[in-house]
Amino acid sequence: MTKDIYQGLNQLGKDVKAPTNPDEAQLDRVANPRPNVDYFVRFTCPEFTSLCPVTGQPDFAHIVIDYVPDETLVESKSLKLYMQSFRNHAAFHEDCTVGIGERLVAELKPKWLRIGGYWYPRGGIPIDVFFQTGKAPEHVWVPDQDVPTYRGRG
Amino acid sequence: MTKDIYQGLNQLGKDVKAPTNPDEAQLDRVANPRPNVDYFVRFTCPEFTSLCPVTGQPDFAHIVIDYVPDETLVESKSLKLYMQSFRNHAAFHEDCTVGIGERLVAELKPKWLRIGGYWYPRGGIPIDVFFQTGKAPEHVWVPDQDVPTYRGRG
Amino acid sequence: MTKDIYQGLNQLGKDVKAPTNPDEAQLDRVANPRPNVDYFVRFTCPEFTSLCPVTGQPDFAHIVIDYVPDETLVESKSLKLYMQSFRNHAAFHEDCTVGIGERLVAELKPKWLRIGGYWYPRGGIPIDVFFQTGKAPEHVWVPDQDVPTYRGRG
Amino acid sequence: MTKDIYQGLNQLGKDVKAPTNPDEAQLDRVANPRPNVDYFVRFTCPEFTSLCPVTGQPDFAHIVIDYVPDETLVESKSLKLYMQSFRNHAAFHEDCTVGIGERLVAELKPKWLRIGGYWYPRGGIPIDVFFQTGKAPEHVWVPDQDVPTYRGRG
Amino acid sequence: MTKDIYQGLNQLGKDVKAPTNPDEAQLDRVANPRPNVDYFVRFTCPEFTSLCPVTGQPDFAHIVIDYVPDETLVESKSLKLYMQSFRNHAAFHEDCTVGIGERLVAELKPKWLRIGGYWYPRGGIPIDVFFQTGKAPEHVWVPDQDVPTYRGRG
Amino acid sequence: MTKDIYQGLNQLGKDVKAPTNPDEAQLDRVANPRPNVDYFVRFTCPEFTSLCPVTGQPDFAHIVIDYVPDETLVESKSLKLYMQSFRNHAAFHEDCTVGIGERLVAELKPKWLRIGGYWYPRGGIPIDVFFQTGKAPEHVWVPDQDVPTYRGRG
Amino acid sequence: MTKDIYQGLNQLGKDVKAPTNPDEAQLDRVANPRPNVDYFVRFTCPEFTSLCPVTGQPDFAHIVIDYVPDETLVESKSLKLYMQSFRNHAAFHEDCTVGIGERLVAELKPKWLRIGGYWYPRGGIPIDVFFQTGKAPEHVWVPDQDVPTYRGRG
Amino acid sequence: MTKDIYQGLNQLGKDVKAPTNPDEAQLDRVANPRPNVDYFVRFTCPEFTSLCPVTGQPDFAHIVIDYVPDETLVESKSLKLYMQSFRNHAAFHEDCTVGIGERLVAELKPKWLRIGGYWYPRGGIPIDVFFQTGKAPEHVWVPDQDVPTYRGRG
Amino acid sequence: MTKDIYQGLNQLGKDVKAPTNPDEAQLDRVANPRPNVDYFVRFTCPEFTSLCPVTGQPDFAHIVIDYVPDETLVESKSLKLYMQSFRNHAAFHEDCTVGIGERLVAELKPKWLRIGGYWYPRGGIPIDVFFQTGKAPEHVWVPDQDVPTYRGRG
Amino acid sequence: MTKDIYQGLNQLGKDVKAPTNPDEAQLDRVANPRPNVDYFVRFTCPEFTSLCPVTGQPDFAHIVIDYVPDETLVESKSLKLYMQSFRNHAAFHEDCTVGIGERLVAELKPKWLRIGGYWYPRGGIPIDVFFQTGKAPEHVWVPDQDVPTYRGRG
Ligand SMILES: [Ca+2]
Ligand SMILES: [Ca+2]
Ligand SMILES: [Ca+2]
Ligand SMILES: [Ca+2]
Ligand SMILES: [Ca+2]
Ligand SMILES: [Ca+2]
Ligand SMILES: [Ca+2]
Ligand SMILES: [Ca+2]
Ligand SMILES: [Ca+2]
Ligand SMILES: [Ca+2]
Ligand SMILES: [Ca+2]
Ligand SMILES: [Ca+2]
Ligand SMILES: [Ca+2]
Ligand SMILES: [Ca+2]
Ligand SMILES: [Ca+2]
Ligand SMILES: [Ca+2]
Repeated sequence: MTKDIYQGLNQLGKDVKAPTNPDEAQLDRVANPRPNVDYFVRFTCPEFTSLCPVTGQPDFAHIVIDYVPDETLVESKSLKLYMQSFRNHAAFHEDCTVGIGERLVAELKPKWLRIGGYWYPRGGIPIDVFFQTGKAPEHVWVPDQDVPTYRGRG
Repeated sequence: MTKDIYQGLNQLGKDVKAPTNPDEAQLDRVANPRPNVDYFVRFTCPEFTSLCPVTGQPDFAHIVIDYVPDETLVESKSLKLYMQSFRNHAAFHEDCTVGIGERLVAELKPKWLRIGGYWYPRGGIPIDVFFQTGKAPEHVWVPDQDVPTYRGRG
Repeated sequence: MTKDIYQGLNQLGKDVKAPTNPDEAQLDRVANPRPNVDYFVRFTCPEFTSLCPVTGQPDFAHIVIDYVPDETLVESKSLKLYMQSFRNHAAFHEDCTVGIGERLVAELKPKWLRIGGYWYPRGGIPIDVFFQTGKAPEHVWVPDQDVPTYRGRG
Repeated sequence: MTKDIYQGLNQLGKDVKAPTNPDEAQLDRVANPRPNVDYFVRFTCPEFTSLCPVTGQPDFAHIVIDYVPDETLVESKSLKLYMQSFRNHAAFHEDCTVGIGERLVAELKPKWLRIGGYWYPRGGIPIDVFFQTGKAPEHVWVPDQDVPTYRGRG
Repeated sequence: MTKDIYQGLNQLGKDVKAPTNPDEAQLDRVANPRPNVDYFVRFTCPEFTSLCPVTGQPDFAHIVIDYVPDETLVESKSLKLYMQSFRNHAAFHEDCTVGIGERLVAELKPKWLRIGGYWYPRGGIPIDVFFQTGKAPEHVWVPDQDVPTYRGRG
Repeated sequence: MTKDIYQGLNQLGKDVKAPTNPDEAQLDRVANPRPNVDYFVRFTCPEFTSLCPVTGQPDFAHIVIDYVPDETLVESKSLKLYMQSFRNHAAFHEDCTVGIGERLVAELKPKWLRIGGYWYPRGGIPIDVFFQTGKAPEHVWVPDQDVPTYRGRG
Repeated sequence: MTKDIYQGLNQLGKDVKAPTNPDEAQLDRVANPRPNVDYFVRFTCPEFTSLCPVTGQPDFAHIVIDYVPDETLVESKSLKLYMQSFRNHAAFHEDCTVGIGERLVAELKPKWLRIGGYWYPRGGIPIDVFFQTGKAPEHVWVPDQDVPTYRGRG
Repeated sequence: MTKDIYQGLNQLGKDVKAPTNPDEAQLDRVANPRPNVDYFVRFTCPEFTSLCPVTGQPDFAHIVIDYVPDETLVESKSLKLYMQSFRNHAAFHEDCTVGIGERLVAELKPKWLRIGGYWYPRGGIPIDVFFQTGKAPEHVWVPDQDVPTYRGRG
Repeated sequence: MTKDIYQGLNQLGKDVKAPTNPDEAQLDRVANPRPNVDYFVRFTCPEFTSLCPVTGQPDFAHIVIDYVPDETLVESKSLKLYMQSFRNHAAFHEDCTVGIGERLVAELKPKWLRIGGYWYPRGGIPIDVFFQTGKAPEHVWVPDQDVPTYRGRG
Repeated sequence: MTKDIYQGLNQLGKDVKAPTNPDEAQLDRVANPRPNVDYFVRFTCPEFTSLCPVTGQPDFAHIVIDYVPDETLVESKSLKLYMQSFRNHAAFHEDCTVGIGERLVAELKPKWLRIGGYWYPRGGIPIDVFFQTGKAPEHVWVPDQDVPTYRGRG
């Protein structure tokens, strides 16, 4: 049932060892199956956790990644393992969110990419971080992420 | 335009000095204008702040007070000033919420009373505190407070 | 197209003068068209305004009336005019809400009735008032009013 | 692919003439396919319209019907045609809602039935009508209808 | 990392052939890991599809299963495969929903079980089906399923 | 009651055999009944299922199709049958969503078209795919699809 | 209490016969009371019903009309009667929605107009239709209609 | 605790007589305390009521006013009294909403202003009115009002 | 600013080493500051993660803990550290959720306790687990947790 | 675990005395860890309170701060302490909100900044204040704050 484009994958459908840090994680790529048009792909990752570089305490985030592929798609199981590899990684919210974006840009060479990191509150004040590789392309459809802002209680 | 029942009020419609702590605050009372039936009154107080007894940092809460009056109502301006008097008062969430309930019970002698304190998160984990003076009376209508539970982000 | 039961109505389909205060307002009654079963009727009145008895300032409320009719229904146009007659009437929230309930009980002699008054905030603290004529009948279906509690901002 | 229990149906899968009033409409019945247990069935009918008996103007309602079948189920296409047959029928909200309930009770002889009629506002005040055939059976699961109450604007 | 209680599983962590109809599907069981207390487990299955027994057209449902285990839990991968096995199975909404409940009762012998089937609308009128094995146990915590009722448009 | 423009339809109002794969499905066309103006049509298809090309497991999606017709409309029953024909078809999320868009473009030759595919999560991370045929025309009204992003739990 | 601008109205405040089809309905006009500025008016019509031209079955829609008046306003009672006149009129969703827009444009000669028709689902797939008379004027404030897209169940 | 800019106020902190119509109401002005930057101020007025010029019946609206101040701010107590002065004033929805906007423009001479009037339904169809003084300035932040459109019931 | 009751705490306000597994974690206790009445405390923990005992993959949950204290409260920082100690602990959803409940019961000896575990979906089907120590006490106020059930997409 | 960029911080991880007014508060700065790209950071501060300059009464606000850093980030603990320092500071809503924005601009010299202040209602009419440092940069992603406007009750 598989196409040729899936044959070079190293992790999908295999029993791979989970990477223990972001550097060790590998992002598998698939040839874009619809290369003649520009389109937009969104991954929603509500299961993200890393560590605070100062206190070592766990941090949690809801992360949404949007991109317009060029020649390659990221394979989603390898993306999941990459996101999980931050579990024992220490980085500030701004650093971590933008860093994921920069890594994906370097590996996928997409036509456009953005990432939104919606972090759980610390000290009563959550931080959200938003990064994109320049102005959104006008001919591509770019819907809002529409993650609600934090409301406290009441 | 006023009725006799409002004549003993000390704070409503007057330019009173705000109390600086809960002990100093006075709760004014009004004779129940509908004494022949049991009914239920709800005050919603989204503007509550006190201090942490250990760190001195400000805490915030959304507080909802429900009661079934007997002979007296609490006058709402004096209730507002009482709630504001916690601004420089230090108490744990459980202590503070239940304490407001106990003070109101002592002064109003209501047929029934409950208080819900919905505190803003500290350390990622908000605390809600719920106190009532025994089982809700079945012949009185007691609607849910329906304050949403905390959801984090995402 | 009319049935006999509508023939005694004084206000429906007529060009009546609006009552200028609650005492002047008349509640028209219709014979219960389904007298063999108990059922429950809800009126939702989001357009209610009265005056504050102390300051003369306008107050606003969202009011919901539920009842189980016995021999008579209240005709809805006369109910609307009765609710509008509070426009220049001065009463406290508790007094006003429970008073509407007591008037309807006196005139309709329903099997059961309740009224919820959800008042707009004054001094940052809205007051809700809930009155019913005893425990809700178990054989009748009594859904929640589910009017959301006040949340402030944020 | 059909079972015997569907063989007596007069309207399902056939090109039947729509009934022009409720008396003309026929409710087809199907033998209960799970007769050994009590269970609860809900029909949600957001497409209901009838006429006002006084003015002849159209009325609209969102109607939800819940029942616990005994020996027969109502066939849903015939139910849809029955509900559509009110399109030119004139009745008050209370009369119409409870009347649908009584007709279904007479024809289906269910173990229990209730109907909620949520009518669009007239004169700023919507009317909801709730009818059930006595107390809900405790051994059967009876979820809330949870149709939101009317909120006006704002 | 596995406990003994998982050793008899036939499908979890294995590359099993998907069952092609409900009769062929096997429900694997796990010994209850917390046998000394009663607790409640909910499975939410928004990915359910079967066929209409009369027209052969696909039907879709959102299904929620709640139970109080006795000696055994159902293993969740085998439950997923069982639910998927309805993909080419033809049954009416009432039959299908209650049938899943009855099968789970027969195999798990739970202390209590209920199932809610929330079917996508046909002919403008969705059908919801609710089944439980008698009155909910009072000493166990049984939260609402709170799946919203259908609202049409607007 | 039919117009000439409906006479060439092959599937509407007829008892046609369901297509078993997308290639077999036929999209019927209707002459645009309002050809003198540009307008925008939205189809919302919450009942979509296909198969994973690697594992053969079923996938589910909520799909929304928007287009600005030129000379032809797509007939909605044939669209429904086309969407149902993916039930046993294996394709990746990106491939499948964009492929539906490309087929509709090829057959309808619309002035503009877009498609949003909102896929149920796999591995905790749902994929959304968005495709449009270039920049949205400014003189046509193009409302947001506003399908909520995935939130996980909590 | 009336102004001159209301004197030519034929239907408002009068006991007029309801039109039986759209051609018979008359749209009354009022001189624009604020002619020196451009502004935007929205009518929300959740009570719309027509007939299917093929099957004769009733269709339902939630319709929202937005316009920027030039010299005339449409009088709202006549608009209501016009919308009601579709009750026995047969037209496809696209035809009907755009047709109402074109009629209003022809009669009101507004500076700009748009109409959104949000139709109840048929065959599981609702159709929404959006029409406007060219690009929205930038100096006028044009808020979103923000009617939620259809979600199916679950 | 007061600044000089508040010294010319006639109504704030004083016991003033409420104006009985809009002409009598006075809008007090305060010098802009942050004159070196452009910013945007929103007043949300959910407590608005006026009279129908034809029937004399009360109308209700939720009104939101947005403006970019130049040299003066409107003092909020005087704004409240101005809004209350419509209580016995008769005007059509369009006339009234745009008229408030024009009065504020004339008195405040703001850099930009807009007003949204969200009126409660009459005859089943609410009217919303939106007015602004030309295109929104691009360098100022102008958030949506996002008042939900009317949904009827269901 | 501290009271005597806080003097025995080992972790609050101190720089303690985070526990690496649940057995190592210590729950600090505080004497109940309001011992004369029964009340209810809720902790909402949206930041919970553990490992799957079979695959070693991370699991995520939103957990809500409710209890009625007897002589002791749990100190909230120690509770946070206990919840964090599951980060590298492997347990099934049912085991883990009920286990937390049993540990808290053993250490706090509360009058009543319950715990709801709302787990993120695996295989498209999330599992929720609910445990309580018998029937909820009627004289104590026990609000719903009201965490929404999972809806998939659309 | 710390990087060099955190070494100059005066407040993070230290036991600092809380500032008693905004002038006394210090905003600590961190070197931008991702200086090669433009990105956007949001702080959501639902716990803000200040005093009314005329009455001395407490005011409450939900404040959201968005900025595009240039060479420095604001350290979030120092931001929290700065926001808390308004607790005993008296300022009008417009003055206070814009003043926070101007202070942050002066200290951080960001590429762009905006602040939204959503104040709790006084006199029934809440004030929202929105300030930004000119037009939003088009190449940076600037999501809506989407804080809901005030709705009153009902
Ligand atoms: Ca948005
Ligand atoms: Ca979450
Ligand atoms: Ca409720
Ligand atoms: Ca709040
Ligand atoms: Ca409810
Ligand atoms: Ca309202
Ligand atoms: Ca409930
Ligand atoms: Ca519920
Ligand atoms: Ca509706
Ligand atoms: Ca939008
Ligand atoms: Ca949106
Ligand atoms: Ca769904
Ligand atoms: Ca919007
Ligand atoms: Ca609830
Ligand atoms: Ca927007
Ligand atoms: Ca928005």
